[in-house]
Amino acid sequence: MHDIITIRGTVGSDPRVYRSPSGVTVTTFRVASNHRVRDRESGEWSDGTTNWFTVSAFRALGDNAAKSLRKGQRVVVQGRLKIRDWTAGDKHGTSVDLEADTVGHDLAYGTADYVRVYTGLP
Amino acid sequence: MHDIITIRGTVGSDPRVYRSPSGVTVTTFRVASNHRVRDRESGEWSDGTTNWFTVSAFRALGDNAAKSLRKGQRVVVQGRLKIRDWTAGDKHGTSVDLEADTVGHDLAYGTADYVRVYTGLP
Amino acid sequence: MHDIITIRGTVGSDPRVYRSPSGVTVTTFRVASNHRVRDRESGEWSDGTTNWFTVSAFRALGDNAAKSLRKGQRVVVQGRLKIRDWTAGDKHGTSVDLEADTVGHDLAYGTADYVRVYTGLP
Amino acid sequence: MHDIITIRGTVGSDPRVYRSPSGVTVTTFRVASNHRVRDRESGEWSDGTTNWFTVSAFRALGDNAAKSLRKGQRVVVQGRLKIRDWTAGDKHGTSVDLEADTVGHDLAYGTADYVRVYTGLP
Repeated sequence: MHDIITIRGTVGSDPRVYRSPSGVTVTTFRVASNHRVRDRESGEWSDGTTNWFTVSAFRALGDNAAKSLRKGQRVVVQGRLKIRDWTAGDKHGTSVDLEADTVGHDLAYGTADYVRVYTGLP
Repeated sequence: MHDIITIRGTVGSDPRVYRSPSGVTVTTFRVASNHRVRDRESGEWSDGTTNWFTVSAFRALGDNAAKSLRKGQRVVVQGRLKIRDWTAGDKHGTSVDLEADTVGHDLAYGTADYVRVYTGLP
Repeated sequence: MHDIITIRGTVGSDPRVYRSPSGVTVTTFRVASNHRVRDRESGEWSDGTTNWFTVSAFRALGDNAAKSLRKGQRVVVQGRLKIRDWTAGDKHGTSVDLEADTVGHDLAYGTADYVRVYTGLP
Repeated sequence: MHDIITIRGTVGSDPRVYRSPSGVTVTTFRVASNHRVRDRESGEWSDGTTNWFTVSAFRALGDNAAKSLRKGQRVVVQGRLKIRDWTAGDKHGTSVDLEADTVGHDLAYGTADYVRVYTGLP
């Protein structure tokens, strides 16, 4: 229940699909949560901060996300935030990951044709 | 920014579409946020509380939701909670409404084919 | 992880403390999430919807809430929403409860002097 | 309404107070959102991920946070997530900031004595 966040944004890359050693699907993609902000005084709109997240989706969600999502689509994602420091050789950085509990196409920006899949979820 | 909630659940009724006097689309539907809970000691799953929400979607989101959503589908909804006491004749009650900022099909339970629509959103 | 919400509001009643049959503290109080809204065109502020919640706090959180909270104080509460239909004799209604994971005084409206208590939480 | 998150954690440093050129108080402090996770099969608790956030509190919230918060205290914070890449000379990195809307002491871990302050908030 910790560090759960819901973001809305644009898929920044086609999903990549991995298979874990134990056979679990892991699908990853980048999401840019970019939004317009309106100045309270002037009423003018301008670009606000863009937050980039690396989203991971596991198991049935991973399978369905891989089949459904494409670069440029608008999505809503709820998941748990994971901030990780990484090193690779002499490089290092911080990644901001979101382990998704759910992903959906954002119907504020389009229509969707949905097909239920048997997942065995409880 | 107040009383924002993200729910996941099942659409309990086909969407109804209204047109406000000023010409704005308002689409409403019921969502049951039912979930299974696992007992920490025994590991057994059982039914948890079901929360019923009346979701309202306005403008482009309302148009697209009406075209995309059907009874029985799994969705994720983010919006603002509105708890209202109502009276109708000598009856009264409390309704729990959710003014949706976004609605999406829950990809944990199915796949979706998404088509972007021009909405004029900023 | 379902139907989690964070609300900010005013404590509407002094907390009531119960002891469950198994000896667990249950503290309940009402919170009014009232907020001012600003018209985008005119810039004018007016009263928005007031949502009333019945908050329940268990165990150590219940003990500490009972000692710390008073009617009229501003608080932030995170918890799980429970919408329940009730009947009592020939009366019936709907209650909107929040099972609190945490409660804190809202420092946007005051200062607080905090004393850590040993709770045995993991 | 974008990228709002509620975190619970431990204040990792005493607050620092700045004054912006326009006279606005800005108080910053670090919060470690560390939590214990329970293995579903074995029931064993272990340390989960620790997410570190740099929290900023402005105006009255900044004033009150500076007076109220100390290193080691447990808090709940709601705010907007800002992920920023920075460079300083030939160094660069990513910071994960939280612009707080509210901060409160977490009553799951202690008691608090609260004094209302006139803030002029609407």
